[in-house]
Amino acid sequence: MSKTINIGLFGFGTVGRGLFELLRDVPTPNVSIRRICVRNLNRNRGIDADFTDSPDEIFNDPEINFIVELIDDAEASFKIVKRALEQRLPVVTGNKKMLARHLPELIALQRKYNTTLLYDASACGSIPVIRNLEEYYDNDLLISVKGILNGSSNFILSKIFNEHMPHQQALELARQEGFLESDPTLDLDGWDSLFKLIIIGVHAFGVYVSPEKIFNYGITYMNDNDIRFANEKDRRIKLVAHVEKLADNRLVMCVIPQLISRNKYIYSVEDEFNGVVIKGLFYDKQFMFGRGAGARPTSSAVLSDITACLYDYRYEYKKMRHSEALPAFTNDVSFRVYIRYENPTDIDLLQLDEVYESYSSSSFNYIVGRVSLRKLLSSRDTLIAHKIFLAAYPTD
Amino acid sequence: MSKTINIGLFGFGTVGRGLFELLRDVPTPNVSIRRICVRNLNRNRGIDADFTDSPDEIFNDPEINFIVELIDDAEASFKIVKRALEQRLPVVTGNKKMLARHLPELIALQRKYNTTLLYDASACGSIPVIRNLEEYYDNDLLISVKGILNGSSNFILSKIFNEHMPHQQALELARQEGFLESDPTLDLDGWDSLFKLIIIGVHAFGVYVSPEKIFNYGITYMNDNDIRFANEKDRRIKLVAHVEKLADNRLVMCVIPQLISRNKYIYSVEDEFNGVVIKGLFYDKQFMFGRGAGARPTSSAVLSDITACLYDYRYEYKKMRHSEALPAFTNDVSFRVYIRYENPTDIDLLQLDEVYESYSSSSFNYIVGRVSLRKLLSSRDTLIAHKIFLAAYPTD
Repeated sequence: MSKTINIGLFGFGTVGRGLFELLRDVPTPNVSIRRICVRNLNRNRGIDADFTDSPDEIFNDPEINFIVELIDDAEASFKIVKRALEQRLPVVTGNKKMLARHLPELIALQRKYNTTLLYDASACGSIPVIRNLEEYYDNDLLISVKGILNGSSNFILSKIFNEHMPHQQALELARQEGFLESDPTLDLDGWDSLFKLIIIGVHAFGVYVSPEKIFNYGITYMNDNDIRFANEKDRRIKLVAHVEKLADNRLVMCVIPQLISRNKYIYSVEDEFNGVVIKGLFYDKQFMFGRGAGARPTSSAVLSDITACLYDYRYEYKKMRHSEALPAFTNDVSFRVYIRYENPTDIDLLQLDEVYESYSSSSFNYIVGRVSLRKLLSSRDTLIAHKIFLAAYPTD
Repeated sequence: MSKTINIGLFGFGTVGRGLFELLRDVPTPNVSIRRICVRNLNRNRGIDADFTDSPDEIFNDPEINFIVELIDDAEASFKIVKRALEQRLPVVTGNKKMLARHLPELIALQRKYNTTLLYDASACGSIPVIRNLEEYYDNDLLISVKGILNGSSNFILSKIFNEHMPHQQALELARQEGFLESDPTLDLDGWDSLFKLIIIGVHAFGVYVSPEKIFNYGITYMNDNDIRFANEKDRRIKLVAHVEKLADNRLVMCVIPQLISRNKYIYSVEDEFNGVVIKGLFYDKQFMFGRGAGARPTSSAVLSDITACLYDYRYEYKKMRHSEALPAFTNDVSFRVYIRYENPTDIDLLQLDEVYESYSSSSFNYIVGRVSLRKLLSSRDTLIAHKIFLAAYPTD
């Protein structure tokens, strides 16, 4: 590509505006925004820029040689990114939902049209996880990637556990701070973490798994009983995304609240921060930590993706090439879990492998037992309907 | 280069043997060690490999297309790396002292012979700091890189502060664990950290500064009075390497013990771990953390450098290209410091800019004041001769 980047920008929400302001305040040589495509042209945005509401005006502009896609709607995002790749325009996107659904097709398009698609900003805000997995952890030593990938829900959990703030008030504060997605269930029910985990899985282990195959569960139904339980055990509840290659080359993935003890790195990941622990056979554990939500950290990650293209950087998807040796995704693993429920019949449907503890009272019941991801996945709708809260509860 | 890597390995110490065992235990496709050059051929190393004591037997072997240099001696290391580059053989080295002294020449050689030299393993054990600075933080937003870069001295400080182990016993334990360099003053007096900091400076800000221009001071003269002082202030002493671009585009670099308060990320970096805080204009702070010493973490970092060459990865030294805008190194900055000394005349030589606190007793004296890096650098020999301990002591 040309060594001057003239951006056609789609979307002017939190991150789009952040990128605009970043390039205005700290000019980057050879990078500028030429035109911005928005849905509503009539809104006064208080800035001097060339706006349009027509994608054609971006794609047909011969001066524009680079697309940055920062809109909310996943399907509209996919159309834009696909069209850009077909026109052999390099693209940077931040839409994790779109990526999680369409990565295989997007990888094929990149190859077919020999064009670049970068999306480090999508996976962990300002922490360069994708690029590190792609570039650095590219040998067979990698065992697992585990972390707090959603800044908003972590912000809420921090307020609840550290400042004893009521659940609803913490949610409201997160909204005021601009940390929540326009649809907050994306953050709270673990969908945002799940989409990021799928992207990480591709770059960590070369395996794409579609969202509906992976169990994810959030913190929506967590209540004071669960918080008290965690405090009594000197643990904190965190929403954890996890991908791990087992010794028999099976791959496990899930997003689930976890009761975390003090000796874990992610115990101390607070507020809107993200933290990722990368575990390998020889290097043991590494920990990366940084801001995971907010306009400025995310837009600076987008800018890093853009400037990488100045140097012809692209993802190689190296691990996908050795298709014969790739780990096989499975949900047939069971683990220790805390489940808090109202109605004693609720728990029967899960057919726990084992029960270690059970507690009943007039106000609530819980059980500590062993259950497989497969059973959890097939029972998710019922769990939600019965407002059951559950959390992984390792013995460590 | 060919997509099969046949390594000629120089050195079979801790890291060299670690690499050999790693490749034996977890075979990496297309990577193998063909021959190992050691000083003493007669030592029984208990392994089945092709040893030689002649560099020529490596360099003249037409099957060898890759050099890995893991010897202790910096000048011998430089000769090997230089010869490899001149023969257009890609090289991976772990010798930070050699790199810190010869980087400008090695960068020129890489360009002249269009060959690759990688050394991520040299800077922070298993944390991929160099590659992140090179690839990800490649725009102008970077403000500072600060961290604990020496696992051995940090191990000792952790034992002293957390387990109240006597200084000498902690040193002995570090030796037993294999964390100390063959010359322990490299670790304890901050030289190892300094060499790593110089490498980081090149990749973070595009500026090479030679070792003698930078003030470094270690923990050799730290005693119980200093430890008590730190504990009273609820701080820990850590050996911190620091490079920062000031607002006026001047660059400050130093390695110095620091009194760290609890609210800092590096307060919690314990034992032989390294931790690096990368600070930027928009993304605020990011923190990377991992094992910084030991055979396996370091050799897995060496392997990551090797496999990167399978994909033609090389450092671009991007930031060095904009030579007109590069920050200018300076020692004309002063900062708040704690200085503990025996003889009252010792302190006069430093000509402190300001004195905030002073304490005298029959057993020891200290002062909290402000001093410039320039004065510290010019007085270093005297500080050492008088066994003075000093530590940065920020007000935060």
